[in-house]
Amino acid sequence: MIVGTEWLVEAEECNENLLRDEKLLRTVFSRIISDLGLKTLGEPLWHKFGGAGGVTGLVMLTESHLACHTYPEHRVATFNLYCCRTRPEWNWEENLKEILNASEVRITKIERGAKPKSKIQDPKSQTAGGEI
Amino acid sequence: MIVGTEWLVEAEECNENLLRDEKLLRTVFSRIISDLGLKTLGEPLWHKFGGAGGVTGLVMLTESHLACHTYPEHRVATFNLYCCRTRPEWNWEENLKEILNASEVRITKIERGAKPKSKIQDPKSQTAGGEI
Repeated sequence: MIVGTEWLVEAEECNENLLRDEKLLRTVFSRIISDLGLKTLGEPLWHKFGGAGGVTGLVMLTESHLACHTYPEHRVATFNLYCCRTRPEWNWEENLKEILNASEVRITKIERGAKPKSKIQDPKSQTAGGEI
Repeated sequence: MIVGTEWLVEAEECNENLLRDEKLLRTVFSRIISDLGLKTLGEPLWHKFGGAGGVTGLVMLTESHLACHTYPEHRVATFNLYCCRTRPEWNWEENLKEILNASEVRITKIERGAKPKSKIQDPKSQTAGGEI
């Protein structure tokens, strides 16, 4: 039973200073949420690690969740977007190259709940039941 | 560059009433966090969808994050555990069969940041930099 689609996104060779910029990463979340017409639930969780550390962001959505973790020491940012209803594609590659100066962006889509679990190119996710 | 390991877990044919039990799902999180020696950051986010809907839980960890979404209408629960430092294996299969009455539990491990992205059997994740 497919219950949703998850995008696992890796952005590499980013500008390390941008990966420490919580405000900038919040704007990435805002753009994803706005562009895809997602709905947040409750307050987002953000944490900036001390020193030269990166940033973690987590937000609960009626469609599931969105997460990011940045690793300035490796110039890497990873994102998870889990949606239990069909949403358009977000242009991760173009947007993360523009916003984080990533030189490479790789995307893996996984059907959650699918059997066998598989990487997919054109998933049909479905709306989860239940009122908000 | 491998920056962490993510476990994607699907529990199927669960007891649907247990998938609506936020308190029970909170105890699943507590057990995972305790058994693996994880450290939470901030307050966890929990949401019980109305009517016959399921539960969403999200918690930020110093090691990355833990998430669950339940779909009582499909008797499915999915979990994500993302860790940027090496942790022991949690016995998802035994524990979710016991706690949620799942009849099948499937686990996919993915190295985050890895190139090419691959499903792995015995990943070596690494500690992310930065003080808390």
